[in-house]
Amino acid sequence: MQNQYIGVIGSGDDVPEEVLQDAEEIGTLIAKAGAALVCGGRFGIMEAACRGAKATGGLTIGILPGLSREAGNPYVDVLIPTGLGYALRNFITVRSSDAIIMLHGEVGTLSEAVLAYQHGKPLVALRCSGGWARRLETTALENGAHLDSRGLMQIHYADNPSEAVRLALRLIGTVPEPSKI
Amino acid sequence: MQNQYIGVIGSGDDVPEEVLQDAEEIGTLIAKAGAALVCGGRFGIMEAACRGAKATGGLTIGILPGLSREAGNPYVDVLIPTGLGYALRNFITVRSSDAIIMLHGEVGTLSEAVLAYQHGKPLVALRCSGGWARRLETTALENGAHLDSRGLMQIHYADNPSEAVRLALRLIGTVPEPSKI
Amino acid sequence: MQNQYIGVIGSGDDVPEEVLQDAEEIGTLIAKAGAALVCGGRFGIMEAACRGAKATGGLTIGILPGLSREAGNPYVDVLIPTGLGYALRNFITVRSSDAIIMLHGEVGTLSEAVLAYQHGKPLVALRCSGGWARRLETTALENGAHLDSRGLMQIHYADNPSEAVRLALRLIGTVPEPSKI
Amino acid sequence: MQNQYIGVIGSGDDVPEEVLQDAEEIGTLIAKAGAALVCGGRFGIMEAACRGAKATGGLTIGILPGLSREAGNPYVDVLIPTGLGYALRNFITVRSSDAIIMLHGEVGTLSEAVLAYQHGKPLVALRCSGGWARRLETTALENGAHLDSRGLMQIHYADNPSEAVRLALRLIGTVPEPSKI
Repeated sequence: MQNQYIGVIGSGDDVPEEVLQDAEEIGTLIAKAGAALVCGGRFGIMEAACRGAKATGGLTIGILPGLSREAGNPYVDVLIPTGLGYALRNFITVRSSDAIIMLHGEVGTLSEAVLAYQHGKPLVALRCSGGWARRLETTALENGAHLDSRGLMQIHYADNPSEAVRLALRLIGTVPEPSKI
Repeated sequence: MQNQYIGVIGSGDDVPEEVLQDAEEIGTLIAKAGAALVCGGRFGIMEAACRGAKATGGLTIGILPGLSREAGNPYVDVLIPTGLGYALRNFITVRSSDAIIMLHGEVGTLSEAVLAYQHGKPLVALRCSGGWARRLETTALENGAHLDSRGLMQIHYADNPSEAVRLALRLIGTVPEPSKI
Repeated sequence: MQNQYIGVIGSGDDVPEEVLQDAEEIGTLIAKAGAALVCGGRFGIMEAACRGAKATGGLTIGILPGLSREAGNPYVDVLIPTGLGYALRNFITVRSSDAIIMLHGEVGTLSEAVLAYQHGKPLVALRCSGGWARRLETTALENGAHLDSRGLMQIHYADNPSEAVRLALRLIGTVPEPSKI
Repeated sequence: MQNQYIGVIGSGDDVPEEVLQDAEEIGTLIAKAGAALVCGGRFGIMEAACRGAKATGGLTIGILPGLSREAGNPYVDVLIPTGLGYALRNFITVRSSDAIIMLHGEVGTLSEAVLAYQHGKPLVALRCSGGWARRLETTALENGAHLDSRGLMQIHYADNPSEAVRLALRLIGTVPEPSKI
């Protein structure tokens, strides 16, 4: 049985090449750590992370918005076709992860980061990857640490893939009791 | 049959008195316009808006996170107890609204604003109310107009309750075809 | 605020005329009792029940499977377009009802009856209406009283609209604590 | 990547020993066929099927109703804790399966069979296992073949584990276009 599940969230398209390389390295490091990789099962950052994990013999899980497994990328072992659309798919992705690493990201990724915060799932943003992963640090409260004034949870930032994975693994197990989820 | 449904989203607690007054006025104006008011059915901004709407003979709808209707505020006509938790309740609230007015707001309100943007629901933030309604303008892209670089939808800002309700009513019917929801 | 919500479930098409008349009478009686009527918002039995309720000044609520309110029947006051498909729409319909009256019915109605049983919502089937409302009595356990050997809840049967509504109203408030929902 | 996913549905407790043995054999045969096994992740029939699959080196997936992976049985490789309750968990289990084998079963299993029928997922009931797997044949329409008069899909019955798995595998790919789901 898999003991640790790390979610990787980020854009499905228009991702700079160097961010895809970081995503692939993050996938590799997750697999090396013996954790399963959870993602939205599609392309861009999700595919790069899965490719890295599979090259290292890891287990990859993709939660799809539509009904067809054919929409998944070729590096996913377990594809869950929810048919519930993007918003609810993102919800299941977050619920299935013990900690989450965020790269780049448009509004879908932002919604997953918000869900992670609401559910008290440890969240690590790779700040150099741009998009909402970077915007979060400059816009959320107290230097990006919180998404609301109640300070439910602390958001963390990393400067490179290995720091991101190390942080995510260390933070697993720190999840508080669910209250306002 | 009700033809227009305007959602009002905002914090359930720790809301400044003047924001509650604005929420109540927004509720009044929605009812005067003959639109139904949709909200999360609970307290703070939701209760104030419902109180305003009911005092003017309007119809109010509350989508609850829990299983018991007793968690609703006393000014809601129709209470839907989803029992699905906060995140999915917020999803149903947004789906049930044709346009959304946002006041103040912590992370739950932010999640509804993000869902509104993802679903192409016109979103009007009362900028003077603080919280994420204000933070959105200073942090989202292009002066708060968009939540991602794809510019799926334009977020609007209002300076007072009547401008907010006028804008929301005017924007109904401008919803694009759902694509990435 | 509405205090009692009675769900009416049944087929959307191919319904015998006399069953539609029974559905309309059930809607009338629900409205006369001062309860709100909850349904799937569409045609056939749902529309007939809503027409009866509206003719008597009642409040009607329709939970829709799709994204557009235009798919609702003209006698619904409050339309909730979930966009979640039939199965999850049925789930919200059941959650929104305090007791449920079942007429006729194909597999969608059966799924709602099963959900009602799982959630401990009092269920009254109009046995003369045919479909699953009748089949349930001949096929479920112990003369149709239970849907499983654990006997979580008792299913009730009525011979005419007034008996059905009387039973449903009397059973509200008997819901046990949710356990296996 | 896993190409075929077979769901195994059945009771979590009070299951006769010979039905557990059949469930284990079904798990073994699914794994031997190279398909992934999907289930509700808990005990009784689900655990027996997973044990059989794991003993043969198969891949097992469990969709949990609660938030904690600790509620899963020890033979599940991938645990998805939805936190959405039994009804929605059952929905995701069915969506994640290409064909479904049903053993024994109380009302939760019935709800999954109904969902399978609604979604056009091939359904094979092991008739000798009792519970709803058997009751379906005697109560559904046309000798148990259909759950409604529209005859959306044909339900199949098997007399032993190998016939059940053979049938399920053969039926994959026969799923019609989703219409009323």
